[in-house]
Amino acid sequence: MGKTLTIEETSSWLKERDSFLILTHRRPDGDTIGCAGALAQGLREIGKTAYVLYNPEVTPRYSQFVDDCWAPEGYEPEFVIAVDTASYALFPKNGDKYIGAVSLCIDHHPSNPCYAELSCLVDCASCGEVVFEILLTLSGEISEKSAECLYAAVSTDTGCFVFANTTADSLRVAAQLIDAGAPHRKLNRLLFRTKTRSRIKIESMIYSGLEFYFDGAVAITSITKKMMETADAAEDDIDDISSLPGSIEGVLAGITIRELTSESDCKVSVRTSQPIDAHKISACFGGGGHRLAAGFSMEKTIPEIKKELLEALKGFFPHEAATRS
Amino acid sequence: MGKTLTIEETSSWLKERDSFLILTHRRPDGDTIGCAGALAQGLREIGKTAYVLYNPEVTPRYSQFVDDCWAPEGYEPEFVIAVDTASYALFPKNGDKYIGAVSLCIDHHPSNPCYAELSCLVDCASCGEVVFEILLTLSGEISEKSAECLYAAVSTDTGCFVFANTTADSLRVAAQLIDAGAPHRKLNRLLFRTKTRSRIKIESMIYSGLEFYFDGAVAITSITKKMMETADAAEDDIDDISSLPGSIEGVLAGITIRELTSESDCKVSVRTSQPIDAHKISACFGGGGHRLAAGFSMEKTIPEIKKELLEALKGFFPHEAATRS
Repeated sequence: MGKTLTIEETSSWLKERDSFLILTHRRPDGDTIGCAGALAQGLREIGKTAYVLYNPEVTPRYSQFVDDCWAPEGYEPEFVIAVDTASYALFPKNGDKYIGAVSLCIDHHPSNPCYAELSCLVDCASCGEVVFEILLTLSGEISEKSAECLYAAVSTDTGCFVFANTTADSLRVAAQLIDAGAPHRKLNRLLFRTKTRSRIKIESMIYSGLEFYFDGAVAITSITKKMMETADAAEDDIDDISSLPGSIEGVLAGITIRELTSESDCKVSVRTSQPIDAHKISACFGGGGHRLAAGFSMEKTIPEIKKELLEALKGFFPHEAATRS
Repeated sequence: MGKTLTIEETSSWLKERDSFLILTHRRPDGDTIGCAGALAQGLREIGKTAYVLYNPEVTPRYSQFVDDCWAPEGYEPEFVIAVDTASYALFPKNGDKYIGAVSLCIDHHPSNPCYAELSCLVDCASCGEVVFEILLTLSGEISEKSAECLYAAVSTDTGCFVFANTTADSLRVAAQLIDAGAPHRKLNRLLFRTKTRSRIKIESMIYSGLEFYFDGAVAITSITKKMMETADAAEDDIDDISSLPGSIEGVLAGITIRELTSESDCKVSVRTSQPIDAHKISACFGGGGHRLAAGFSMEKTIPEIKKELLEALKGFFPHEAATRS
C-alpha cells in the first residue's frame, strides 16, 4: 500500500514535477473525464506538460471535455496520474502497461486500496471536488475551461445534485465553479435535460414492459437486444436506465434484466430502498455491489432469470404474496 | 404602486410587528408553500403569532411543509403577507378578501407590480432564497424546520438545480440549508426521484403518442381525459409534464395539448429552445407567456388544434417541411 497525501501535499508534489500522463477509468463517466480534462488544463496553465491517455470507450457526450488533451502517440511521461479510478481492474485496456507504475492516484472511492505510489483520497460525492481543491491550492484560481470540466464531473456524479451522495460541499464547489465561469445552463441542458429519440423509445418500452410483484414492492423490467435495435439505441442512450424501476412509488426493489451478447447472456441490475439489501439479493446469484445498488450476470434467458429471481425474492419479502399485481 | 423594502428593512418591519397571516398562490407549488411554512416557523421562533391561510388547492406532496401552520377559523391577523405571489390574479379564491389589504409581499418575480403596501422583491431563482436571507437577518440562524421548508422551496423552483434559472447563489443557499439540517436526501427522493405508477403510465402514453414534424424540430403530444382516467392520474401526477416533448434532442418546440373539461376544451403548452419564441407561437392563438415557455387555451378538439398549429408553425420553421417524420 502506497503513501497518502493531503490536498496541499498533492499540490506541492505536482508543482515540483513535470511531464504528466493522466489515466481515466474503463467505461468512462463524466467524473473521470471531467477530472482528467480539468487537471491537464490546470497543469498546463502553470506551465507543465500534461496529457490524458486516450480512452477508447469515451462517448461523444463526454469527449468534448478532453478533446484537446489526448496524449499524442509515443508520448513518454515522467509521471502517471490516475483520476477517479479505484483499482487496477478499472484501468482501460490501453492503460494496462501502467499497472504498477502509477505515481499518483486522485480519487474519492473509499474502496481504493491505495494501489498507487502516492494517493490523494477524499471521501466525497465526486472526484471533481477533490481535483477542485487541488487546482485551487495549486494556482489560487480555477480557469473557465477547468471550471467547465469540473462542473461536468461534480454534476454528473451527483445526478445534478439529486443523488443521495450529494453534500453541502458538492453544492458549494458547484457554486464556485459557476462563479469561475462554468457554463452550467448549457451543461445542465446537455447532460440532464436532453433525451435522444432512442432514449425516449427505450424508456417507453421499459415502462410498458414493467411488471409489479409482491404487492408493488418489486418492479421488474427487461431490455432485449431486439428492443435496443428497434429503438436504434446505443450505450449512451441507456445510461443510468436501471434506476427507472426503483424510482417508482412503493417499489423497494427495482430490477432490470438486460440481454447482452445473446438471449442467454444477461446482466441484472438491482436497485433497492431501505431496508432491502441489493447486495444480498445479488449475492444469491453470485453477484454483489453496494447496499442499494448491486448486480449480477447470468447465462440464462430473461424468463428463466425472472422465475429464479422471484423465488429468491420471497426470502426478502416474506410478508407479501409473490404474485404479479 | 407600493414602496419596496430591502432584506434588512423587511426583517426590521417584521421584528417590530406581530400577528401575521401568510398567503400562498393559486395552484400552490413547493416554492410558495415552502416559503409560507418557513416564514411562519421563523416568526414563531422569535415569539410572534403567525399562520398560513389554508390553500384549498394544496397537494399532498407539499402540504406536509405547512400542516402545523394553517390558520384556525376566525383568525384575525393584523398584517397580511403574500409570498411568491406576483399579482392579485394569483390569489387563491379564499384569499380574495385580502385583495388591497396586503401589508407586505415577498417575491422573486420581476413582473410583480408591487401591488402590496410594501414589497421585498429580489430577482432570483426562487422566493425561498429571499425568505432565507430575511430569516437569517431576522434571527441570525435558520432552524431545522425552516431549513426543510426552504430546501423544498429552492429545490422545486430550480428542478433540483437543473433549470436555467439556477444560479451560484441558489446552490450556496441550498448548501447552507443542508448545513442547518434540511434533510436533503429524504426531500430529493420524495420530490424528484419518485414517480407514481400513474405518472409512469401517463409518461409511457405520452412517449408512444409523440409525433415529430419539421424534420424533428417540432414534437407534439396530447393528453386526453381518457388517458388520465386509464392511468388513474391526478394533477400531481402530471406536474411539469409539458416539459417532456421539449426535452428531446433536436426538438426546438415541444407542444403538449391537453383536454380539460371536454373534447373541445383544450390547454396547449408550448416549450421552446432558442431561437424559437414560445410566446410568439402562443400569441397566434390569443395566448402568451415567456420566451421559452408559454401557452394558450382553445375550444377545439385535439386534431383541429394540431392542424391549425402545424399551419401556424410553418411561419416559425420556414426552412423545414411541415410533414411528420
